[in-house]
Amino acid sequence: MDETTTPMIAAAVREQSPLVQYITNFVSMDIAANVLNAVGASPAMVHDAEESGDFARIASAVGINIGTPSPSWVTGMVAAASAAREAGTPWVLDPVAVGATAYRRDIVAGLIEHQPTVVRGNASEILAIATSQAGGRGVDSVQGSDEAVDAARSLARELGSVVVVSGVEDVITDGVRTAVVHGGHSLMPMVTALGCSATALVAACCGVEDDAFEASIAAMAMLAVAGERAGATAAQPGSFRVGLLDELAQLDDQRMSAVVVDR
Amino acid sequence: MDETTTPMIAAAVREQSPLVQYITNFVSMDIAANVLNAVGASPAMVHDAEESGDFARIASAVGINIGTPSPSWVTGMVAAASAAREAGTPWVLDPVAVGATAYRRDIVAGLIEHQPTVVRGNASEILAIATSQAGGRGVDSVQGSDEAVDAARSLARELGSVVVVSGVEDVITDGVRTAVVHGGHSLMPMVTALGCSATALVAACCGVEDDAFEASIAAMAMLAVAGERAGATAAQPGSFRVGLLDELAQLDDQRMSAVVVDR
Amino acid sequence: MDETTTPMIAAAVREQSPLVQYITNFVSMDIAANVLNAVGASPAMVHDAEESGDFARIASAVGINIGTPSPSWVTGMVAAASAAREAGTPWVLDPVAVGATAYRRDIVAGLIEHQPTVVRGNASEILAIATSQAGGRGVDSVQGSDEAVDAARSLARELGSVVVVSGVEDVITDGVRTAVVHGGHSLMPMVTALGCSATALVAACCGVEDDAFEASIAAMAMLAVAGERAGATAAQPGSFRVGLLDELAQLDDQRMSAVVVDR
Repeated sequence: MDETTTPMIAAAVREQSPLVQYITNFVSMDIAANVLNAVGASPAMVHDAEESGDFARIASAVGINIGTPSPSWVTGMVAAASAAREAGTPWVLDPVAVGATAYRRDIVAGLIEHQPTVVRGNASEILAIATSQAGGRGVDSVQGSDEAVDAARSLARELGSVVVVSGVEDVITDGVRTAVVHGGHSLMPMVTALGCSATALVAACCGVEDDAFEASIAAMAMLAVAGERAGATAAQPGSFRVGLLDELAQLDDQRMSAVVVDR
Repeated sequence: MDETTTPMIAAAVREQSPLVQYITNFVSMDIAANVLNAVGASPAMVHDAEESGDFARIASAVGINIGTPSPSWVTGMVAAASAAREAGTPWVLDPVAVGATAYRRDIVAGLIEHQPTVVRGNASEILAIATSQAGGRGVDSVQGSDEAVDAARSLARELGSVVVVSGVEDVITDGVRTAVVHGGHSLMPMVTALGCSATALVAACCGVEDDAFEASIAAMAMLAVAGERAGATAAQPGSFRVGLLDELAQLDDQRMSAVVVDR
Repeated sequence: MDETTTPMIAAAVREQSPLVQYITNFVSMDIAANVLNAVGASPAMVHDAEESGDFARIASAVGINIGTPSPSWVTGMVAAASAAREAGTPWVLDPVAVGATAYRRDIVAGLIEHQPTVVRGNASEILAIATSQAGGRGVDSVQGSDEAVDAARSLARELGSVVVVSGVEDVITDGVRTAVVHGGHSLMPMVTALGCSATALVAACCGVEDDAFEASIAAMAMLAVAGERAGATAAQPGSFRVGLLDELAQLDDQRMSAVVVDR
């Protein structure tokens, strides 16, 4: 895998315009759809069980984000995950705040049975899943980013999924290979739902690239490059959000080649 | 109907501030409400059957958009459509992605029985409804924009509704009269939910003008003028969206008179 | 209470990053979460009864906004309000358009039984609750802002809550003390859901300050200062919204000290 892979995946998203079904939380609907549009993908927020399984069979990729869950939405999520798995559609899980309530832990446990192609979360979320999968070891026994990386590698092997740990640096692993994407900007956590939008980008890249490890690197690289560029001119979160969408729409091979990825 | 009609309708929206009940998808909630506010209308996203019918009786106009449907929302949509029809409140249907799933086709079939004042969609959506209404003729037998215009005219006559086909140019027809609105900007499809926002504007104009054909022309003209002006200074989708709202808030008689409408 | 209280509360929000659970309407999700982020709070839109009560016990404060209600959401609201009351978590009620339908009046009547720490609405909403509580006196007998202030004082005493009446000037009262916050900008009503965002800020401030009267003043002052500053450079609603978020992120002691509060 040479250093042209990441720009090529971003180019494939622009050219093929993958249809991304994203079942996501109410806060992220607007920004995630606009992020997908900006990079050339085609968003479809199709969530209800009446159609979510049917749609997962025709989508290029599916994202499932549990940010604002309720029983009827969870039914739609499970239908989409199950159909995606059966149809060979790649699907990406975003386990928002999975450690916060028992309800979220149960939802994630149910979804994981349908073998997500990628799991993307922050360090706390990945640790919460990993420790739960490992038999209930307390979260406080595995903290800090090194522990999160170890937990991500174990989780990836256990699930057979790629795991993405977002943070100041993004770590991507399939349990064997591990990469770190640098870039982004300190304003990014000040804009709501950019993590959810990262999940949407991972799904978009999985819709055009079979190697989910490389697809995930490309997705995080897109956000890292656009974020770094947006932060060069915007100093506050309102204008940073506008600039980020503008930069995502201008990602080309040259700009994507500037990303720093440690493999 | 002379060329001052369109500016007059836009002015009436600013002056009368019609109360627009818009039952719409989760992605479009923010932008559609802000678009309505920007032109001087008063948005109210009242969707549940517990109150959607009651509200449709007091609203100036109702919009119903099926972008993210679920059974409980559909019940609320039917209650609003039914009450609007009974009370003489104009109502506008936006059949988002009606061709994508059987569920959406069923929803639209049920809503159409309540005789929408206007149906607004893109060419694919209008064709999907028209061919379904015409007895299941395959979509592939009617493609291209000329076919969409013919289908729109037939559909308008069959339903007794105005039909709006959005695209690079917008076609508005009541089955007898047909108009084409020029303008807009190539960045518009890059901003999520501007189609849904167009539907909101059609409802707003129907709230102040009884001739739904002229109201629909005015609504599409508002977006065309604002989009063209916003595109003159914004080159990317994030800033274009901001500029579009700014321009919608500045539409006056002079700017509205610049729109090109072929009748 | 001296004039440094308001800046100190804003600083406490930045420093303590209160976890604000906000059960709000679909239109406001994006802007309210971004407003909370901009001032340094941590938003969590946890709404469903499966977890809303559990979450209210761990949140710093809860906001409940009835803008787009439905039965399942109301169940989640009641669970959160009830748990908040039991756990001593401050909670803020936003009775959006309570006078518009019988359904909303019933929802508010049910929520008020759980003793909100603060009720924030516009004059019409506060009057609708006050007259309903006072035995059904018609709204038309109490109009104008003086009547709203009198009604707010009575309502505050009756409920044992702080009441905030938003408008060109914001009035805050606990039934004994009354304050008026000046500032803001005429473009604020042109941006959707800034009232809902004000409620979110009141919750954030109640999460760091036990005196809900002072917390409410500080919250309205934050919006007033940021709005006034944003309006100095933005002349239209799209760019005003962007500027408002930028300004909220830059509130410091010096800027907060510029607010004019009549006590």
